[in-house]
Amino acid sequence: MKSINICFSPALYPYYSQNDDKTLVVVVDVFRASTTICAAFAAGAVAVCPVKSLNEAVQAKARGSLVAAERNADKCDFADFGNSPFDYTPEKLYGKTLFFTSTNGTSAIETVNNSNSAEIIIGAFVNLQAVADFCIERGKNILILCAGWKNRFSIEDTLFGGALIEILIASGYFTANSDSAYVSQILWKQAKDNIFNFLKDTEHFSRLKNRVLDNDIHFCLQKNTINLLPIFNKSKNLIELCSVG
Amino acid sequence: MKSINICFSPALYPYYSQNDDKTLVVVVDVFRASTTICAAFAAGAVAVCPVKSLNEAVQAKARGSLVAAERNADKCDFADFGNSPFDYTPEKLYGKTLFFTSTNGTSAIETVNNSNSAEIIIGAFVNLQAVADFCIERGKNILILCAGWKNRFSIEDTLFGGALIEILIASGYFTANSDSAYVSQILWKQAKDNIFNFLKDTEHFSRLKNRVLDNDIHFCLQKNTINLLPIFNKSKNLIELCSVG
Repeated sequence: MKSINICFSPALYPYYSQNDDKTLVVVVDVFRASTTICAAFAAGAVAVCPVKSLNEAVQAKARGSLVAAERNADKCDFADFGNSPFDYTPEKLYGKTLFFTSTNGTSAIETVNNSNSAEIIIGAFVNLQAVADFCIERGKNILILCAGWKNRFSIEDTLFGGALIEILIASGYFTANSDSAYVSQILWKQAKDNIFNFLKDTEHFSRLKNRVLDNDIHFCLQKNTINLLPIFNKSKNLIELCSVG
Repeated sequence: MKSINICFSPALYPYYSQNDDKTLVVVVDVFRASTTICAAFAAGAVAVCPVKSLNEAVQAKARGSLVAAERNADKCDFADFGNSPFDYTPEKLYGKTLFFTSTNGTSAIETVNNSNSAEIIIGAFVNLQAVADFCIERGKNILILCAGWKNRFSIEDTLFGGALIEILIASGYFTANSDSAYVSQILWKQAKDNIFNFLKDTEHFSRLKNRVLDNDIHFCLQKNTINLLPIFNKSKNLIELCSVG
């Protein structure tokens, strides 16, 4: 049996990380970075290069690269893309490499990458089943890392965690024993029949709602619309596509 | 209207702390430090001096002071008390000052004290109503700080948070808008009719259960058995009793 656990914030990662070479970390930022990265690959991007600072993103743009940059839910002026999955079309992205920076998602990836040698994949509701299949196939311990909001707890990432934990436990290959995993499952059970309604009074939902991003919200909460698995390639510092059987 | 929020770990405190001079922080460690501190005052202690390191506790003992010291749920050999509230009797404590160190509770107090000037009180189920009354009387923004377990999320502290948030919102003086507050309320609503049952598969519950500490668990989950309010006096570095009307 392998274990599955969930960490509610990148700032808590050091307290959840263990046996990193035997661990697969699923980085999730439902609203919207991890969803959007899936959308970029669905549009035919060949790689996504996560960068933490706006400065690095500006430099990539100056070198002529395609750049996605978001801060506080808004697109940065200099960038080609914001964080809305609808911007990521084949016309703009097919065959291209995209530099990508967002408020929470990219720093979550960097937190893991700078800490240890755990394998990193990108999860969201849109590719939930692809993530679950890969977790089962790899046979490692799983740690779900919620990107959160500026290191604070985010409910939508926790719900994704609950959904993934439910599938993995049902597979018979995983057990979950932590309080955070327990709570994620309880919340998912309560939310799953109407996630939209469950989330309507929550923080980041309101942040997006205030920006009239209803379509983004709906897109991000749909399950299994993208059967792709973005995986972080440490040696290249790039997110690439892993073919899912 | 004042705000009420909850922070799931001392390691996340920097991301939740704001306007600290207008904030009252409720430090909670249900299993067992904050419950035990209440028990010490109920037994007639005049002050509790929280110390973070075992070394400081050993030095206090060498100076002839009464010392409570726990690590990983076990009493330290050199100490007079462990972390079981039943050890704290009037015979041993009446009129005395107690030096106190525990795995999580005392470092949560120190986290706040070292960060800013927020007022600090000690909350647990045993003094829930006293805490709520004080929060309403003070008229500050409230931040509940869960001691957690070695900076990891703990469900029992979160449930206390949900219970306190429920009372404070019902008072009409407070609003809660964060995802962490929302989740705490959901969990409390689900748990409150049978907290013991709700917690029976959780982490720290099992840790105590394995040590045959059922009585401690029951004591810690009883509401309003101690109508006292421990408050941290920064200038003296002591927890003292605040008289509750």
